[in-house]
Amino acid sequence: MKFAYLPLRAMLASVLLMSGFAPLPVLAQTDAVDTGLSAASIEHAQLLRDRALSGTMAWDIVEALTTEVGPRLAGTESEARARDWALRRLQTMGFANVRVEPFDIPGWTRGLEQAALLAPFAQPLAVTTLGGSVATPEEGIEAELAAFNSLNDLRAAEAGSLAGKVAYVSHAMQRSQDGSSYGFYGELRRVGASVAAEKGALAILIRSIGTDSHRFPHTGQMRYAEGVPQIPAAALSNTDADQIERVLHREVPVSVRLLLRPHSTPSAPSGNVIAEIVGREHPEEIVVIGGHLDSWDLGTGAIDDGAGVAITAAAAKMILDSGKRPRRTIRLVLWGAEEVGLLGGYQYLETHREQLAQHIIATESDFGAERIWKMSAQVSPAGQTVVDIMAQLLAPLGIAPGDMNTSGSGPDLIPMVAAGLPSFRLVQNGMDYFDLHHTHDDTLDKIDPVALDQNVAAYVVFAWLAADSTVDFRRKP
Amino acid sequence: MKFAYLPLRAMLASVLLMSGFAPLPVLAQTDAVDTGLSAASIEHAQLLRDRALSGTMAWDIVEALTTEVGPRLAGTESEARARDWALRRLQTMGFANVRVEPFDIPGWTRGLEQAALLAPFAQPLAVTTLGGSVATPEEGIEAELAAFNSLNDLRAAEAGSLAGKVAYVSHAMQRSQDGSSYGFYGELRRVGASVAAEKGALAILIRSIGTDSHRFPHTGQMRYAEGVPQIPAAALSNTDADQIERVLHREVPVSVRLLLRPHSTPSAPSGNVIAEIVGREHPEEIVVIGGHLDSWDLGTGAIDDGAGVAITAAAAKMILDSGKRPRRTIRLVLWGAEEVGLLGGYQYLETHREQLAQHIIATESDFGAERIWKMSAQVSPAGQTVVDIMAQLLAPLGIAPGDMNTSGSGPDLIPMVAAGLPSFRLVQNGMDYFDLHHTHDDTLDKIDPVALDQNVAAYVVFAWLAADSTVDFRRKP
Repeated sequence: MKFAYLPLRAMLASVLLMSGFAPLPVLAQTDAVDTGLSAASIEHAQLLRDRALSGTMAWDIVEALTTEVGPRLAGTESEARARDWALRRLQTMGFANVRVEPFDIPGWTRGLEQAALLAPFAQPLAVTTLGGSVATPEEGIEAELAAFNSLNDLRAAEAGSLAGKVAYVSHAMQRSQDGSSYGFYGELRRVGASVAAEKGALAILIRSIGTDSHRFPHTGQMRYAEGVPQIPAAALSNTDADQIERVLHREVPVSVRLLLRPHSTPSAPSGNVIAEIVGREHPEEIVVIGGHLDSWDLGTGAIDDGAGVAITAAAAKMILDSGKRPRRTIRLVLWGAEEVGLLGGYQYLETHREQLAQHIIATESDFGAERIWKMSAQVSPAGQTVVDIMAQLLAPLGIAPGDMNTSGSGPDLIPMVAAGLPSFRLVQNGMDYFDLHHTHDDTLDKIDPVALDQNVAAYVVFAWLAADSTVDFRRKP
Repeated sequence: MKFAYLPLRAMLASVLLMSGFAPLPVLAQTDAVDTGLSAASIEHAQLLRDRALSGTMAWDIVEALTTEVGPRLAGTESEARARDWALRRLQTMGFANVRVEPFDIPGWTRGLEQAALLAPFAQPLAVTTLGGSVATPEEGIEAELAAFNSLNDLRAAEAGSLAGKVAYVSHAMQRSQDGSSYGFYGELRRVGASVAAEKGALAILIRSIGTDSHRFPHTGQMRYAEGVPQIPAAALSNTDADQIERVLHREVPVSVRLLLRPHSTPSAPSGNVIAEIVGREHPEEIVVIGGHLDSWDLGTGAIDDGAGVAITAAAAKMILDSGKRPRRTIRLVLWGAEEVGLLGGYQYLETHREQLAQHIIATESDFGAERIWKMSAQVSPAGQTVVDIMAQLLAPLGIAPGDMNTSGSGPDLIPMVAAGLPSFRLVQNGMDYFDLHHTHDDTLDKIDPVALDQNVAAYVVFAWLAADSTVDFRRKP
């Protein structure tokens, strides 16, 4: 039912737009701005949008990536296979300038991971090592738990009070549609180990940063602070965290065994894969869309971020096949090594710093495969005129403008946005995203092809209009 | 909402039953039968039923069993801990004749289990060894897959055609409310290995006998046929089975690696745990209720069958605490070694064959923790009169009489029912049961305490009325 009315709404929108086209209401309000967008150009965006709703190749792309490559941890041979796969696929699709921009990253692979409750009630626990964690000794760590309800409670513990113990830290992460709670709760995963080490802990075990109640631990990257001993860090599935907390309620000493054997190397190869539709008037001006090619190693990276790769590649392909080229270049970037610290994003800025001013605007799809419900942007007043036109074309897809001037563009664009690149975001419904995020269960069957097509429809509108306009989206400093 | 109307319905039922009590409509039709049940006795069943709906200790029992023991594979030290736990618990609850009836079973433990797709697309697969399977060689098995859509297709393969290959067999198991499809689809798990071995296969890999789309493989017992080579047998999660089938659709040779290292021993200890409410008039006549104490080793055995243990123990405890004793003895049996072949049930019949005629009727709760929606029985006409009274008292719980004369009593009672014991069954809603069944994800958080109490309310009605009646439920041969 949710999707059934869309074609009708899209048709109505077409009628409205085509009948009263010049000027659009929004253009009437800002008619001093020349966006460079002709009525025919806006009509083309609308045509591509409606075409996307009747089916795209996005599903085929994510099916192929998750099946033919599967998991693709940054810096590993499987990420290299993903780059080869992407090169072949993008060449076959007919894009221009298909290439890899290689770079090196610190290497990390998972290895054996086991945990068990030893006392008072011996039983195995479902655990996963956090990305970047050091290993336990080969014989593991056996120690009493020191339990905390939150990162703040851990921070409040006295120095030295965790000597000889494993810290266990819980939290109360809630679902949110825009995913904004991830920043707050995710801090436990990112910094918990060093906070616990400062108090003398041997290792840290956290409740997974996730919202599901299945037996899947959620991995994700962590970082060590300077000058603090590096201790092993792992996450329990929420189900196992519940179990630990029930045991803790018995108010008897609780001890665990932890065996984590990840392996680090100083250097491992990664890379960003790039493909283009070269602009017909200003090929040097670039609109960037994309998703990240790497994934965590547990699942097959379907929602994180095979979906983003598929949505943006399919949107670009629709424009390529439409018979019209936009004024500016559309650059598809399939980012490498996102999960381990946005390393592809930082490397891209490093490589392209000289051309930063020629990057017009950018966005990334990296929040799953559900429908987009909100858009936002942080652009110049002239740019806002184009964003308002986009908003009108996105409204029939069920996408409402959110707060403007607060937008990010996606994780891999953080470095460029910090350096001044205008940002734009199509926000997917993330209510269930953290059920699957960074788990074994991030697999293709979780993706709805109809929702995927709605995403493609939105990206095609953004990419076409941004690339066919002439405005400077950059806000004056 | 589902539960909100129950107190009202229960109250209405009380009013109806109490106002027009003697005779009940059903008694009017069969007034020649003396059930031995006084109006006060039926009223007592009804009082206990309503009391159960306002909350029982069933949740506390299943919380304690799954937390304090956790997984409890038959024949292992953890099943022994479950027996110790049950003995202590049942003694503390005040039951009479609390004891273990020990017996020996063949021992089997899981060990290492790994699987991977080797070609054309290397990636790990989520797998679990089937109970009773032999091990692969220490170095594992690497071989091409020979794929079949069903057990029947495998059966149709030519002798010798699977030489040097691993058989992969899929199926199309559907959800069913009464669980009846498990028999049909489960046959693949039970007999598949020997069918594949007859064709020359090195090992068999099946799609899990389950209805979920998560990355949990489902274990369960398998058996080898006489005179056929014993080959290793494992199940892929349904998600991984989907992946394998997508790869197979590429129509290139598919090869896998399988490493399964279970360990068997000739003999391991198990036992049935028994507790009683001794009958006031005919202590030698026995009504049996119970669930099985053992579980698979992957999860904590919450829905299979911690729930059944909790429901029946709580029902018995409510009768014990009611201040009235029934005429006959209520015997709570917490069966051992059910999962590995109903070994507790067979042993019980062996031990109690001499007293079989004194076993009046029996039932077992072993189909999860959802609400009961149907009841059935296979009894004498006199017994049917009592069953009809039960049906009237169960109707306000949302339980309808199903087909009579086709009933089982639960797995552990199969041997006794085959030997002539009258059967009775309270059928839970099993639509989601095979999402969790025999997986890592069978954990406490999946149980709804309100549904658990509805189950207790039904068992208390059955146990009290069966034990306080005087009828012979046995059908004349």
